[in-house]
Amino acid sequence: MNPIQLFDTESSTFTYILAAPGEKEAVIIDPVERHWERDLQHLQRLGLKLRYVLETHAHADHVTSAGRLCELTGAVAAVPSGCGIAPAQKQLNDGELISFGTGEEIRVLHTPGHTAGSMSYVWRGNVFTGDTLLIDGCGRTDFQSGSADALFDSVNDKLFTLPDDTLMWPGHDYKGQAVSTIGWEKRHNTRLANRSRADFVQIMGELNLPKPKLIDVAVPANQNLGLPHGG
Amino acid sequence: MNPIQLFDTESSTFTYILAAPGEKEAVIIDPVERHWERDLQHLQRLGLKLRYVLETHAHADHVTSAGRLCELTGAVAAVPSGCGIAPAQKQLNDGELISFGTGEEIRVLHTPGHTAGSMSYVWRGNVFTGDTLLIDGCGRTDFQSGSADALFDSVNDKLFTLPDDTLMWPGHDYKGQAVSTIGWEKRHNTRLANRSRADFVQIMGELNLPKPKLIDVAVPANQNLGLPHGG
Repeated sequence: MNPIQLFDTESSTFTYILAAPGEKEAVIIDPVERHWERDLQHLQRLGLKLRYVLETHAHADHVTSAGRLCELTGAVAAVPSGCGIAPAQKQLNDGELISFGTGEEIRVLHTPGHTAGSMSYVWRGNVFTGDTLLIDGCGRTDFQSGSADALFDSVNDKLFTLPDDTLMWPGHDYKGQAVSTIGWEKRHNTRLANRSRADFVQIMGELNLPKPKLIDVAVPANQNLGLPHGG
Repeated sequence: MNPIQLFDTESSTFTYILAAPGEKEAVIIDPVERHWERDLQHLQRLGLKLRYVLETHAHADHVTSAGRLCELTGAVAAVPSGCGIAPAQKQLNDGELISFGTGEEIRVLHTPGHTAGSMSYVWRGNVFTGDTLLIDGCGRTDFQSGSADALFDSVNDKLFTLPDDTLMWPGHDYKGQAVSTIGWEKRHNTRLANRSRADFVQIMGELNLPKPKLIDVAVPANQNLGLPHGG
């Protein structure tokens, strides 16, 4: 059962709608502020009631629509407990299960590294990796308590221990790619396959990426679920 | 079981990869020339062998990679019999079944209107409608033996008789939308829901759309599966 994958061309962010066949409840992962109407339209067209809005982390490159979607639909915002997203109704911890529909379950994996609080989500043979693991790449580890060491462990000890045929759906892609598998990434991911910790930490330390343009706006906004700050 | 949906930003074309869980064979619908490597990489990452390349029609706005994918993978090009795509190994007719994997079946629906030969494909509760039916819209009917009358019949007599919860995956979208349902389109499609034939034919006759920029190149190229014409 694949998710419905939606894309934001400005930030190259993927949003996912999860719903099992015949079910009437859905979960959305990492919705983007400017697409809140598009995403509600998808739910309406598919006849789905939104139960949870999940965030993989407090994003630095775009603003979430989580708060607005929850206000408009009655859904619950469920977020990683370590991301400082205080107004969310549900703070998630490693190993927790999120239930929706008739017996659907999402398993929460704490996968720090891109940010200290980052989570991945496992559902029906799929894993949603946020910016921890990307297709043939990984998220940067140089801000928001990021850590190359932690990312190395998250990928090797958690994500790469999922079954090889697990479909891996990333938080971003910049090359028109949509989906991979854990098995392929284990064998071929340029940054992480068959690499020592020392090698990986060195690669990540030498990336010298520019500061994300929106980080000073986006992170505080996302820690408020994308809602205007009161007062 | 949803397909994997891929997008071409230049022509806003969707390409679909169909594979059932645990299966090793896949079908691709409407692949785009410039993305042949991306699409092969998807198949490789997912561990899938390509069995068929399906075209919904001879496209006027982009060139297909069908010929190249078939040459590189040994897949069979299966195309609507009325589209003049002579080199394809399999010419499809209305009602035909395409089998792949272990018991997977795609049902062929002849849905003329956008072009005289256009086909839609039904698989596991999904319908791939090409340019016959779009999300809250439909394909134009003013070239390639298009016919508003024929499109009206194709939609009302064939597509709208599928179960309401059938997921409808279009050939294009220009608004960031990805998927709809037959039920929603029957009730809400601006051009087609609850409209008389006369109304619809009048709307389509008054669109006055510009000629597609690539039509004189793309249609002959697509009728040769996107392969160079022999001297």
